[in-house]
Amino acid sequence: MAITRGNLVVGQSGGPTAVINNSLVGVIQEAMAHPQIEGIYGMVHGIQGLLHEEMMDLRQETPATLETLRDTPASALGTVRYKVKDTDYERLLEVFIAYNVRYFFYIGGNDSMDTTNKIAQLALSKGYEMHAIGVPKTVDNDLAETDHCPGFGSAARFVATAIRDTGYDTLAMGDSSPVKFMEIMGRNAGWLTASTALAKETPDDPPHLIYLPERGISIEQIVSDVEEVYHRLGYCVVAVSEGAKDESGEDLGSGRGDVDAFGHILKGGVVEFLDQTIKDRLKLRTRYDKPGYLQRSFASLQSPIDREEAYQVGRLAVRAAAEGKTGQMVTILRQPSEVYHIEYGLAPLAQVANKEHVVPMEYINSHGNGVTEEFIRYARPLIGGPLKRYARLSKHLVAKRS
Amino acid sequence: MAITRGNLVVGQSGGPTAVINNSLVGVIQEAMAHPQIEGIYGMVHGIQGLLHEEMMDLRQETPATLETLRDTPASALGTVRYKVKDTDYERLLEVFIAYNVRYFFYIGGNDSMDTTNKIAQLALSKGYEMHAIGVPKTVDNDLAETDHCPGFGSAARFVATAIRDTGYDTLAMGDSSPVKFMEIMGRNAGWLTASTALAKETPDDPPHLIYLPERGISIEQIVSDVEEVYHRLGYCVVAVSEGAKDESGEDLGSGRGDVDAFGHILKGGVVEFLDQTIKDRLKLRTRYDKPGYLQRSFASLQSPIDREEAYQVGRLAVRAAAEGKTGQMVTILRQPSEVYHIEYGLAPLAQVANKEHVVPMEYINSHGNGVTEEFIRYARPLIGGPLKRYARLSKHLVAKRS
Repeated sequence: MAITRGNLVVGQSGGPTAVINNSLVGVIQEAMAHPQIEGIYGMVHGIQGLLHEEMMDLRQETPATLETLRDTPASALGTVRYKVKDTDYERLLEVFIAYNVRYFFYIGGNDSMDTTNKIAQLALSKGYEMHAIGVPKTVDNDLAETDHCPGFGSAARFVATAIRDTGYDTLAMGDSSPVKFMEIMGRNAGWLTASTALAKETPDDPPHLIYLPERGISIEQIVSDVEEVYHRLGYCVVAVSEGAKDESGEDLGSGRGDVDAFGHILKGGVVEFLDQTIKDRLKLRTRYDKPGYLQRSFASLQSPIDREEAYQVGRLAVRAAAEGKTGQMVTILRQPSEVYHIEYGLAPLAQVANKEHVVPMEYINSHGNGVTEEFIRYARPLIGGPLKRYARLSKHLVAKRS
Repeated sequence: MAITRGNLVVGQSGGPTAVINNSLVGVIQEAMAHPQIEGIYGMVHGIQGLLHEEMMDLRQETPATLETLRDTPASALGTVRYKVKDTDYERLLEVFIAYNVRYFFYIGGNDSMDTTNKIAQLALSKGYEMHAIGVPKTVDNDLAETDHCPGFGSAARFVATAIRDTGYDTLAMGDSSPVKFMEIMGRNAGWLTASTALAKETPDDPPHLIYLPERGISIEQIVSDVEEVYHRLGYCVVAVSEGAKDESGEDLGSGRGDVDAFGHILKGGVVEFLDQTIKDRLKLRTRYDKPGYLQRSFASLQSPIDREEAYQVGRLAVRAAAEGKTGQMVTILRQPSEVYHIEYGLAPLAQVANKEHVVPMEYINSHGNGVTEEFIRYARPLIGGPLKRYARLSKHLVAKRS
């Protein structure tokens, strides 16, 4: 047991999610149950706030505010993208000592876990008692040592819903715009893009093609994939990662000399490139959607499971610290069972820091244009229940009379 | 009373909406209550299906399918963008006679009302008894003679939610990306873009700036507007219509020689143009979202009021036809009252056809960068209840110790 009385600091780092505040509330509410934890301080914009001693007193927040925060997207403390410099750590130790900070929690991704690990190691090396625990968070779902990451399930629910809805729209449009691209977040890890496959109820439902950054694909294959789907179904809906690569590992649409039929250099990202290429090559009307930051902030589609897990990892981080642990990240461990069942665990931050867990090849189909059943079994439970049911007409055609 | 026994055709035209199938179900269910209506046929891809005699027998659909269709976005019959040619009308009359079509319903916008009107006039001029009624539908909300258009309220609920969620995300990011643009549908009518203002709970909430196509604005003013908001609040969220114009009435970002700081010609639409301009001029990190077709197809955020009104205009169109009327469009008439109350009416299609009801100047603020309270009073009820409540921390800062 950590019996040292002292103060707690908690911060949020990196890209927000639709459920990240659940982890914050979990930390606060659990901390209140531990008498050795005195002040509960929030870092304003993460580690940067700590360096500048900008912190808020979270004991001042009402229970009602904390409950409503669980519905609220984005990082209530403010977030930051700041790579901590070696010279910063001494300063951080000063701050910890000045404020008698004994409990440190950082809600974030790989970089944040690296920062938390270095803080834990620094405190140990200086003989300063400090319990530093990482709280996993990322819509990219790319943290090592955990089955999945809080934030991912809700983002996956959003992108699956979005591709399905835009798919119905595209089908309805017929030949007036039969090809639709949607650009999905995840520059290096295709977990979210792959999750659009959860929109499928039958094999011919959108998304018809899915391109992940893990598996480079030639523009020639994309053109022939779209052509094949369009000729078979009369429309084609494509989910493509913002970081999709060609066969040489270059970003698709990186603008390195890609020219359209008129010799214009193509600018913009991957969807603009694919959109223009299909227009030119297949002479089909194409459209694209770029939901952008809605993918990580659309709180109306929080996954109930994701929301609860995000809350629990916050609580458990505090419990681990209160038990005297440090230098660990809370993990989610899927249990072998028919129904979805998880246990929570801890992993040394050193095994998580700066690692990137990308989509394994067994989750990508042999053509590199879709996902496998194994992936579906993995991802399905995380979105927290089936999507809203839709209907299609049975289309009994009326006999022609003239 | 129209006593002529005969068949009914119904079609969906133009851009789909999140509730357009409610109008279709309204037509079908009401038609079943009128013995003089025999076949209930759906045009496959609108008027084009009629020209090619591609119709489905809607009496074959189960009640369960019809109920689930009310939750289903996009046009279940398939839609079309086809401007009917004068030479097509003779062919249409042939089809009406061949199929004994006496009841014609077209769910759509201005063009569709023009088509419906011409069909009604043609039948009259040929002495062929035909009851042709228009069913209003458009997320653009730009039909004349009606207080608002089915489809608008749900799209407005989506864009208000989207801008609020991305606004929380932008606030959380702080200076790592303090400026966010969202491009909103409505090339000529700014109703949807204006509706993002429904996300505001306080004057300083996002969206901070709103630019509509009805009111041209110089790029210089946009730059100074963004600069003012950023310096006052530390971030700035902008809702801009895809059809926003400059002071000379040209599309912003139309690419007519717009160059960035490096002399590159700027391509892409209005948000790409504004994004690059603010980066260059204010040296601020900017981001943009382009939710695109999600705005009209995101069924998870159907407005309950919009959904019900879309259903009723379908039912009432059939009732009007059964009463012997033709050449009319069903309208929604707001009643003067404290609480939202409407009546349904009819307007001659000739007064609706090809007209465009844009946002009136009294709904746009004097600077042309936001909306008035009058607009809020108009639009608020249409999204069907308040948005999900969110919380912010009260931010009691901890006293600095070093």
